[in-house]
Amino acid sequence: MVRLGPKAQPLLFGKQAGRPLPPTPSPSPRPSRGPIGVEGAIPERESRYPASWSAEMARGRIRGLAVSDVRFPTSGAQHGSDAMHPDPDYSAAYVVIETDAPDGLKGCGFTFTLGKGTEVVISAVHALSIHIINKDLDDIISDFQGFYRQLTSDGQLRWIGPEKGAVHLATAAILNAVWDLWAKQEGKPLWKLLVDMDPKQLLSCIDFRYITDALTEEEAFLILQSGLSGKKEREEQMLKYGYPAYTTSCAWLGYPDHCLKQLLDANQRWEVEEAIEWVTELAEFKPLWIEEPTSPDDILGHATIGKALAPLGIGVATGEQCHNRVMFKQFLQAQALSYLQVDSCRLGSVNENLSVLLMAKKFKIPVCPHAGGVGLCELVQHLIIFDYISVSGSLENRMCEYVDHLHEHFKYPIVIMNASYMPPQEAGYSSEMKEDSVKKYLFPQGEIWQKFSCS
Amino acid sequence: MVRLGPKAQPLLFGKQAGRPLPPTPSPSPRPSRGPIGVEGAIPERESRYPASWSAEMARGRIRGLAVSDVRFPTSGAQHGSDAMHPDPDYSAAYVVIETDAPDGLKGCGFTFTLGKGTEVVISAVHALSIHIINKDLDDIISDFQGFYRQLTSDGQLRWIGPEKGAVHLATAAILNAVWDLWAKQEGKPLWKLLVDMDPKQLLSCIDFRYITDALTEEEAFLILQSGLSGKKEREEQMLKYGYPAYTTSCAWLGYPDHCLKQLLDANQRWEVEEAIEWVTELAEFKPLWIEEPTSPDDILGHATIGKALAPLGIGVATGEQCHNRVMFKQFLQAQALSYLQVDSCRLGSVNENLSVLLMAKKFKIPVCPHAGGVGLCELVQHLIIFDYISVSGSLENRMCEYVDHLHEHFKYPIVIMNASYMPPQEAGYSSEMKEDSVKKYLFPQGEIWQKFSCS
Repeated sequence: MVRLGPKAQPLLFGKQAGRPLPPTPSPSPRPSRGPIGVEGAIPERESRYPASWSAEMARGRIRGLAVSDVRFPTSGAQHGSDAMHPDPDYSAAYVVIETDAPDGLKGCGFTFTLGKGTEVVISAVHALSIHIINKDLDDIISDFQGFYRQLTSDGQLRWIGPEKGAVHLATAAILNAVWDLWAKQEGKPLWKLLVDMDPKQLLSCIDFRYITDALTEEEAFLILQSGLSGKKEREEQMLKYGYPAYTTSCAWLGYPDHCLKQLLDANQRWEVEEAIEWVTELAEFKPLWIEEPTSPDDILGHATIGKALAPLGIGVATGEQCHNRVMFKQFLQAQALSYLQVDSCRLGSVNENLSVLLMAKKFKIPVCPHAGGVGLCELVQHLIIFDYISVSGSLENRMCEYVDHLHEHFKYPIVIMNASYMPPQEAGYSSEMKEDSVKKYLFPQGEIWQKFSCS
Repeated sequence: MVRLGPKAQPLLFGKQAGRPLPPTPSPSPRPSRGPIGVEGAIPERESRYPASWSAEMARGRIRGLAVSDVRFPTSGAQHGSDAMHPDPDYSAAYVVIETDAPDGLKGCGFTFTLGKGTEVVISAVHALSIHIINKDLDDIISDFQGFYRQLTSDGQLRWIGPEKGAVHLATAAILNAVWDLWAKQEGKPLWKLLVDMDPKQLLSCIDFRYITDALTEEEAFLILQSGLSGKKEREEQMLKYGYPAYTTSCAWLGYPDHCLKQLLDANQRWEVEEAIEWVTELAEFKPLWIEEPTSPDDILGHATIGKALAPLGIGVATGEQCHNRVMFKQFLQAQALSYLQVDSCRLGSVNENLSVLLMAKKFKIPVCPHAGGVGLCELVQHLIIFDYISVSGSLENRMCEYVDHLHEHFKYPIVIMNASYMPPQEAGYSSEMKEDSVKKYLFPQGEIWQKFSCS
């Protein structure tokens, strides 16, 4: 899809002028919270952990994994329950893990899916779950790199991937739950957990397999080391102003209707040459980038398109369907993208996202995450805030997608203020859904879906 | 995996000399059949179709699709049923489609899987099945390109692909069943059905989306047109001598044990630089190619390895985990492989394989298909025999993998004679399994698996 960026869509952090401002999204309701600060900003920790426990003692053994097929009838109430209907219903394969620790904390994770795609991913979650059940959380996080590789190298599941498709989305859902649980146990929002980890700890979470020709562990270490300088100030800045957002629906303002339509219809549907021809014709509208002009697998095609459009000042953005770090590595090596759109739920959770953020830094490519769907905004804000504070150190040409959609089903929905994502304060990965929403939208048993099946 | 080719492994079609011959695999048992010839070679057709029917009348509406989880405990009898055990059990997601036509013919298709990966693919088959149930077979094959695109563009499933992972393997299984049914209705083995189609008919089965920058429909037409010359002679040659096979286990003869082990352990596990170093050290053994040296997604990595090894006379072979035509297109564009190993069940059935065979021809890269697994030899022999007769017209540097494994479960197992695949004579895609085998190895209900669960 073609989306307009800061040039035409002035949402960036007090630096924009020109076109009329789109309506600012209104902040979602959020429980009140204490004063914001850099150190000691998270009030829950002390009250949650009795003084005599160490964090490690609390971790516990994972004794259960539950996965739910949560679907929202976004394709229209009258069609949502019709299995023959091709319209997408925004959905999540929603994973909850529990431990035997006395803290009673649950790790919640998910991956974004559409309708019946959810059942395939759920089947993959079940197949992968043997790797996590009865595992000590401490064993996982003390060798997170190893655990990531264990999941992605399962001898019976690797063949139907590897690291792509349903198994990789399932891997993301499970690992997202692990990260949520870990952050909850530490009493920190995920971004803060990451920001507080030292470079070596961060690196121990990343599987560098297949990317060392682009980024060695040593190079990654140096990036993180140099990110320590000014970190405190950037954290303060984030807490005060948040991370710049852009919203897709507003991005179309200023486009004549016929162009809008043509562009929308072409989403991922162009051949390489077609993309170049179409976007060249649209150059007068000065889009900042053309998004996903062709197959998400076509690294060389994107490179050809990018090269042809560069003289027009139009960039290429892609990544929401880029399935793993090996693909992103090549997009960067081939100079096939000028904006990198990570997806928090397609890549293998925080672990694989970290490797992509680090590669983007090395290749000097701004990361502008994909969001929307179900809960993608909730998750990706943590990653991009961490990226700013500890990796990129820059907001230039950067923004995080925002869609005002389905946040009400999350226990800690995003907070947008002045067109920016405000850093979450609650412990965890903001991935926990309201119990009532899960129950109501469960497919096919939930109240919402039962209503359709009766009507 | 490193496999030796014709240089070290003299299985090619009466042209080899030098090293001692490995033991020739003994032919599998096969029902006797009539005389072999080019025209009218397939005796069943007339007896199957009453004179008053046209083929189209017979096609019928697809009224049922059944999918079975067939697993062979190849990881060792005592471990096969243990869900915790990481060893692979060779398996198939096995699809059978039936029509309401009075011919009673069934289309059988599958994709090769490993153990619990099968249940994920089966879930995807169920999700895709709405596209085929109640569809007229004639509508499918008269716009096969359109049907292929319908399956691969499902609005709720594309997100968990697209054209990769579990949904794409499921697409292959379903389409393989359609091709089997079509060939059975025509009374021809699949290779012969393809060989007898005119260029335009063949092109109407191929989705050219995302590959026109490498191969246009017009170029493909010209390739097929020029393939008409000498076609009859090549068909005769195939029927008489078959298509050269190579067998992986024999390929190791002549290697010292310690090398063999080192090479085997490195399968897909090398970083780009590691691959170059290792294979350079092994150059004295003159391997024809190094197979899958690194991530199957790493086009640019393979290109780097290929460039470094070319002066040593060692090629790069890959493809068994290359997930679609867009990836193969780039492997060819980047000169990242010197031997292309299509997999009949990973690509989207015959349809997508056709596009890859045609691209390989244009880029002058020999196709050496991947086989083994469950029934991959049975299927791919059709594709490679068609490739020789109608597309490549060459046997130079070409051979088709052969593994003597699990053929006894197929109704029409491959026939190897003089180290060559003999063209199948029976109508269909050789994809039909014996009913008894399906029943016995059905997971978890089948007799074989029940035995494990009781012991």
